[in-house]
Amino acid sequence: MNAAIIAVGSELLGSSRLDTNSLSITLLLERYGIPLDQKAVVADSAEKIARELRSLLELHDLIVMTGGLGPTDDDVTKEAVAAALGLQLVDDADILANIEQKFTSRGLRMPAPNRRQASVFSGQQTLANPRGTAPGFHLAVSAGASVRHVWIFPGVPFELEGFLEADFEPWLKGNSSQSVYRRVIKLTGLSESAAEEKLGPFYRRHEGEPVTILSSHGEIQIHIQAVGTADEAYPELVTREQELREIFGDAAYGLDDDTLEAVVGRLLVSSGSTISTAESCTGGLLASRLTDVSGSSSYFLGGAIAYSRQAKLFLIGIDPAVLDHEGEVSEPVAIQMAQGVRRRFSTTYGVGITGIAGPTGGTASKPVGTVHVAVADQKEVRHKRYLFAGSRELIKHYSTQMALNMVRLMLIRQR
Amino acid sequence: MNAAIIAVGSELLGSSRLDTNSLSITLLLERYGIPLDQKAVVADSAEKIARELRSLLELHDLIVMTGGLGPTDDDVTKEAVAAALGLQLVDDADILANIEQKFTSRGLRMPAPNRRQASVFSGQQTLANPRGTAPGFHLAVSAGASVRHVWIFPGVPFELEGFLEADFEPWLKGNSSQSVYRRVIKLTGLSESAAEEKLGPFYRRHEGEPVTILSSHGEIQIHIQAVGTADEAYPELVTREQELREIFGDAAYGLDDDTLEAVVGRLLVSSGSTISTAESCTGGLLASRLTDVSGSSSYFLGGAIAYSRQAKLFLIGIDPAVLDHEGEVSEPVAIQMAQGVRRRFSTTYGVGITGIAGPTGGTASKPVGTVHVAVADQKEVRHKRYLFAGSRELIKHYSTQMALNMVRLMLIRQR
Repeated sequence: MNAAIIAVGSELLGSSRLDTNSLSITLLLERYGIPLDQKAVVADSAEKIARELRSLLELHDLIVMTGGLGPTDDDVTKEAVAAALGLQLVDDADILANIEQKFTSRGLRMPAPNRRQASVFSGQQTLANPRGTAPGFHLAVSAGASVRHVWIFPGVPFELEGFLEADFEPWLKGNSSQSVYRRVIKLTGLSESAAEEKLGPFYRRHEGEPVTILSSHGEIQIHIQAVGTADEAYPELVTREQELREIFGDAAYGLDDDTLEAVVGRLLVSSGSTISTAESCTGGLLASRLTDVSGSSSYFLGGAIAYSRQAKLFLIGIDPAVLDHEGEVSEPVAIQMAQGVRRRFSTTYGVGITGIAGPTGGTASKPVGTVHVAVADQKEVRHKRYLFAGSRELIKHYSTQMALNMVRLMLIRQR
Repeated sequence: MNAAIIAVGSELLGSSRLDTNSLSITLLLERYGIPLDQKAVVADSAEKIARELRSLLELHDLIVMTGGLGPTDDDVTKEAVAAALGLQLVDDADILANIEQKFTSRGLRMPAPNRRQASVFSGQQTLANPRGTAPGFHLAVSAGASVRHVWIFPGVPFELEGFLEADFEPWLKGNSSQSVYRRVIKLTGLSESAAEEKLGPFYRRHEGEPVTILSSHGEIQIHIQAVGTADEAYPELVTREQELREIFGDAAYGLDDDTLEAVVGRLLVSSGSTISTAESCTGGLLASRLTDVSGSSSYFLGGAIAYSRQAKLFLIGIDPAVLDHEGEVSEPVAIQMAQGVRRRFSTTYGVGITGIAGPTGGTASKPVGTVHVAVADQKEVRHKRYLFAGSRELIKHYSTQMALNMVRLMLIRQR
């Protein structure tokens, strides 16, 4: 079985809204191991809805539609589906009475357009809507020897959730033999294509098994999954996770919901260490990420944001001769920032970042994106020079990502 | 002309991500009055991409595709489009050299898979990608007497934005006869329902004209629009903007792409002022937002992140007796932070923030979400106490939003 989703509604095609209903449907499909490989958002046009439904039914066993079941003239989902599948719409007296009653119970008269919501597909299953007026539908459509399923739900999220819980999930449970277990392995400090190259042997060993690589904001996620009962799937997932850990070594920083800042936080806690930060081009973003982690006050003692030359002198105690001779964006300044802040806050680790976030301020020898990161502890100081590409905000983000990773690598190598 | 969008990528079909690229494309289509009536998200399957493209081309003049242009084997957009439209893919030596150069300039070897990104559609327009390795494409396809247009862009948002600006928008401008002019009025410091209530008379005066209110992250956006030539639409928009400014007064902080931090930056520049920050619970986020603005080094001199008690003493010079007597989260401490950091950095303004971002650390008298913000200048210091609801990250964000707004209000009232 494979699935597609159709969301109906011109309002979903503006620049200020997205179809988020599909996410709750997707979660259920994932839970019961049914691959979703297409989604469509279609305006309130009977012709376009019908065309899309027919097209998707050729390659999918299960179609879930939302929206376009309201009382107004531009709600045309039922008419479009009837036309596409050759079904008849008939008025249902019980549903009509039920809709009328919902209005009269609140002392209101049923507006005439609401009558449209009482039409149903002849010979198909109609689903009661305890949370609103529009019923839902489950249509079984013959396609040669097999049967394809079309589910139609209102687009109001609260009503949709009711149908998913009462009707759709029980049906999925009864019609899927297996569950899907997922794991995400998170990497940082290498490029997507480098990760791809290293994955070659893994791909070949697990041909046909779904592996997804996502890359964004200086990190790479490898999504793996295993299908079956928990007893079958779980050991498989663990084995594959181990294979990936062997392939990527220290570049694999965490799993699933882990963030790099949370992983660094756990390593700091478990080693009884503390940290402080001295930031120039990242302007406080590194400290902000560290303090996004609940409980970070036990290891993050504070930081200095030394944006101006003066602040570098009085706040962190950089040697003015070094500043003059090497420039604010340089290896010696990053190192002095790391060592200086570490000393001032009396922390185990000190981090220094200085660079050019752009879009202005670059030179031939120090172009925009040049960033020096240094991490100091009691025994040593490590330094790296980076050249990042991207917007000002991206360069800030990458810089903090690489700084957090340098701290992480120092922590795990000292264990 | 009417349009459809196809976003390619299996990762967009999971439960944790949505296709948000379509929103920036939609914005442009709206600006040039081109109706969008269908969007599709398709898995990395050449068969499904080709089928969707063929189906959408029957009813649409303009198709915009994003994603699936990466170097890996599952990136199949070009192959699918070539198959759907009967086009040939050929290697482009210049693009290949360019991709190689991007790697060698950073001291890296081009990974073998990147070679795939150098294939282009024979006889069609290839678009240079100054922000990445994958080129974009503009294909002109005959359909009877008319020509249909297919644009293909990478899915990486930063790269996509580059193509939209350099290639797509100029083409739209030359190919559409009427324009929709929009304006966004941005408010902060009041709730969505308060804004809604104040808007009553405006709604009645402009019945039938589209007005959208969006609320998120401590700010409210009011979207208005006018259709026609620039000469017709622009004065109308200005009149309505003025009406809204009269309704909302100082709560209206900016227009369109303005951010609160950029508006504060402009006010600081125009008044020749400087600023420094002392943060506890926001952990550097205020400074990071201030430094997201290009050119902020001319007015933001630096900041102190005083997460620990010790740091509050040595870094900002808070009176230990006040800390002991009032507690770290208190009005006097916020005020001393603002005054202390202002003095240390010799800036026109100093900001102090102390609070409890949670989820732990709250007490009966100081629950999670309690935040004190103070802003000091030479003559005075202002203080406000807030009680925010939400996650740790939201509380951090709201705190910086209110702090920036306090600085803004002091700046505009002193003009």
